[in-house]
Amino acid sequence: MSGKSARVTVLVLMAQGFEEMELVITADILHRAGFNVQLTTLAQNLDPVLGSRGISIVPDCTLDDASKNPCDLVVLPGGMEGTERLMDDARVLELLRNQHQSGKLLAAICAAPMVLAKAGLLKGRVVTSHPGVREQLVVDKYSEERVVIDGNLITSRAPGTTFEFAYTLIAALDSREKAEAVNAGVLARV
Amino acid sequence: MSGKSARVTVLVLMAQGFEEMELVITADILHRAGFNVQLTTLAQNLDPVLGSRGISIVPDCTLDDASKNPCDLVVLPGGMEGTERLMDDARVLELLRNQHQSGKLLAAICAAPMVLAKAGLLKGRVVTSHPGVREQLVVDKYSEERVVIDGNLITSRAPGTTFEFAYTLIAALDSREKAEAVNAGVLARV
Repeated sequence: MSGKSARVTVLVLMAQGFEEMELVITADILHRAGFNVQLTTLAQNLDPVLGSRGISIVPDCTLDDASKNPCDLVVLPGGMEGTERLMDDARVLELLRNQHQSGKLLAAICAAPMVLAKAGLLKGRVVTSHPGVREQLVVDKYSEERVVIDGNLITSRAPGTTFEFAYTLIAALDSREKAEAVNAGVLARV
Repeated sequence: MSGKSARVTVLVLMAQGFEEMELVITADILHRAGFNVQLTTLAQNLDPVLGSRGISIVPDCTLDDASKNPCDLVVLPGGMEGTERLMDDARVLELLRNQHQSGKLLAAICAAPMVLAKAGLLKGRVVTSHPGVREQLVVDKYSEERVVIDGNLITSRAPGTTFEFAYTLIAALDSREKAEAVNAGVLARV
């Protein structure tokens, strides 16, 4: 593990109704890259959080605690109910705006680009999302690519695009070579 | 959801050190197909079980309770430590042998085909596994295909082949059309 990777800190936000594959693939792949990945609950305690397909996962930290320290990347998994809970939380919108103003990386997949829109961060930016929320997502430039990079914003489409999404995040925070090295043991089609 | 799918029951075994992506992708995709998916812990209680990359997931039932009722499919996720724990549990080997003798479906991914070997179920069968355990897996016929079907045994290679693995299970238990319908919202490369 390179010293560079060892210092990268990632918050993966988890609100009830998150899409389990999107959260777990992203967290697991970034962990394999040597990043410090923190599953971050909106709640005030570390009780398991229920996903969209009935799987409950234990968080690592609370949003209130995590927000006290800087991080290199905030990831928003999708899932319709989880996305709505993220959009409705003023602390989440503030965290995203602060991260954005610092030029730090923000990533959202599936329905979750709607949270970036709610935070007012998509003006003039090109993004993608799950096809099912395309009509609800009012943006200047929409792309149907599986992963879209526009400056510090990285967006993607669905559970089945999460491997590519996670490898794009590794390339942005470390290198394409690191992403390829991780995938040598994972065997995803990318 | 078809009546046929509503009756399909799947046990996904979880032992400490399971590979998180393999467990969650399989469970989530089979849930989307309308199957009754039970995350089944080896423990005597429903405490969260720690995966190979630090993610803890809450089980739905214990192996002791689940073994009392018939099921249509038993899935073994990989992860080296989890696989070793499955191999070392006499109840798991008995469940697999009973399922096999009934001609019911068994599926294993990554390192977990080693559990099928330990149970003595691979004689004359063609299987695959993670490339990293290929040498340890003494089998008659080894394949490097991403998913291998031989009668009631379905095996696969790694986290990155789990979508194809799960869709093969849906096709075996329901239909190829059902698998395609699920992937219409998931967008996996298959």
